[in-house]
Amino acid sequence: MTDEFELIRRHFAALTPTGDDVLRGPGDDCALLRPPADRDLAVSIDTLVEDAHFPAATAAGDIGWKSLACGLSDLAAAGACPSWCLLSLTCPAADEDWLAAFAHGFGALARREGVTLAGGDMSRGGLSVTVQVAGYVERGRGLTRAGACPGDGVFVSGWPGRAAAGLARCLASADAPDDPLAEALNRPQPRTRLGRQLAAAGVSACVDVSDGLAADLGHILTASAVGAELEAAALPVAAELAAAGSREQVRDWLLGGGDDYELCFTAPYDLDVDGLAEAGEVTVTRIGRITAGGVLQLVELEGGRSTLVDAVGYRHFSS
Amino acid sequence: MTDEFELIRRHFAALTPTGDDVLRGPGDDCALLRPPADRDLAVSIDTLVEDAHFPAATAAGDIGWKSLACGLSDLAAAGACPSWCLLSLTCPAADEDWLAAFAHGFGALARREGVTLAGGDMSRGGLSVTVQVAGYVERGRGLTRAGACPGDGVFVSGWPGRAAAGLARCLASADAPDDPLAEALNRPQPRTRLGRQLAAAGVSACVDVSDGLAADLGHILTASAVGAELEAAALPVAAELAAAGSREQVRDWLLGGGDDYELCFTAPYDLDVDGLAEAGEVTVTRIGRITAGGVLQLVELEGGRSTLVDAVGYRHFSS
Repeated sequence: MTDEFELIRRHFAALTPTGDDVLRGPGDDCALLRPPADRDLAVSIDTLVEDAHFPAATAAGDIGWKSLACGLSDLAAAGACPSWCLLSLTCPAADEDWLAAFAHGFGALARREGVTLAGGDMSRGGLSVTVQVAGYVERGRGLTRAGACPGDGVFVSGWPGRAAAGLARCLASADAPDDPLAEALNRPQPRTRLGRQLAAAGVSACVDVSDGLAADLGHILTASAVGAELEAAALPVAAELAAAGSREQVRDWLLGGGDDYELCFTAPYDLDVDGLAEAGEVTVTRIGRITAGGVLQLVELEGGRSTLVDAVGYRHFSS
Repeated sequence: MTDEFELIRRHFAALTPTGDDVLRGPGDDCALLRPPADRDLAVSIDTLVEDAHFPAATAAGDIGWKSLACGLSDLAAAGACPSWCLLSLTCPAADEDWLAAFAHGFGALARREGVTLAGGDMSRGGLSVTVQVAGYVERGRGLTRAGACPGDGVFVSGWPGRAAAGLARCLASADAPDDPLAEALNRPQPRTRLGRQLAAAGVSACVDVSDGLAADLGHILTASAVGAELEAAALPVAAELAAAGSREQVRDWLLGGGDDYELCFTAPYDLDVDGLAEAGEVTVTRIGRITAGGVLQLVELEGGRSTLVDAVGYRHFSS
């Protein structure tokens, strides 16, 4: 379906920049690139399937945005600066209005982040979108999930839980255009600037929050062979999230909700979060501490003593 | 579905090598790679959707093989040496036997070609497989579709048309295990060795035959703003193809059948095809000549004069 990819490429042409490292973009068997010699290459691939990863009623522009945002969030977690991507789009028919809207959403984020669409593929079938993203990070500075040490602080960007609350709202009513929770679900903001700051600072471990804060922090704990204590009162609760449900529901969204695309990372306990937040253009909150044990616990601190609130299983909230 | 990708990764672990350029493979947000500084990077993405790109009855191992072969064929057309890939697999359920067979087919080709599975993603939905491949080519030597000049010879590798005949046979009967035509369809041989030879030789243009010989040669003609004359008697007809249908049917398969994954390229008319075939480990046949006109014609040569057989539209055979 070269012709149809040609169609979408025309929609994209005005919307995505052309990077210096792209020698030859779409229209050939391969894209040809010249990665900078002093950088490592970080790559990731993600597929979003209709009904599994987004409700069927999701607007085409939101699907376009989100399909790129998921990959950029992976790059952010590695501390990489986004550069180019490949898109493989499978859809039931070549509806030009739908494609234009999809390309507009995708292109808006691509332009903001300086990402070139270097190539792609288009097929007919049930709606699904695969995006492969690539970015660069200074040699040997790529962040991973391994490296958290007992005594490190646990930090999170932004206001997790809002996407899950937004999903609940969208499923209850398809018509929530100006709802910040629906916006958090449909137009997630990949924390690429923050990720690059974290790589420069050499934080000990990092992950993006796609499966839920507890589950994704769990990935760090597993890879680093450590545990963590999260302080209940320290969890950042957005005002609109607090207003959206009971206290228990809000905590479930915050610890268990996926699709937030915030960054969760570990670093020296006394890290300057304000400086980092300013450079990364997003709030950063310390929410706990890495422990030597292999478990993740939610605690309340009072007068220097911690009381167990919940033994948060890594997957407890992820279903 | 991290856990299920973990499952398939375990199946792959023994089957794919680990390249020197892979700093960190599956199991993190990103794979981290260190491309060689003196090489350009060639990348491509392809999605195979059940029923659109392969019959639903196709064996899992064949799907695995073919999903990688398509991408490797794109790398061959660019003259690149394959290095690593990312896999995004969408399937209805995590059937471990199916996954094992899929991984076995994928891994057999990956190992033969030295391709590392650097990362991936797994989702639930209708069966579709997206593979992103990456390879390296000497700086500035990557082959493209543009560059064919009037007077150049037109060459093709192997025996095109067999995959289309194999598809006709498979659709007629699901049970054709030892049929070389079905084998050509289900286990295509990407011409990566030949592609590297072509890049070293600096041929003028190259494409892989995925849509059909006439259609894909048409891509070269369009990109190079030239035409071509193909000599009917020079077209390489495999014995098993000749035996599979009428003369007209055979010619339709040969010029119009997709999925062959041979290479079609242009180069000086007197190119040493025997030397190239030996180094590339596949037959190479000169089938015609690039012309200044913008059309693709099939001709018969007799006593130095050419007679038009068919004005082969670029897409005439591609439907």
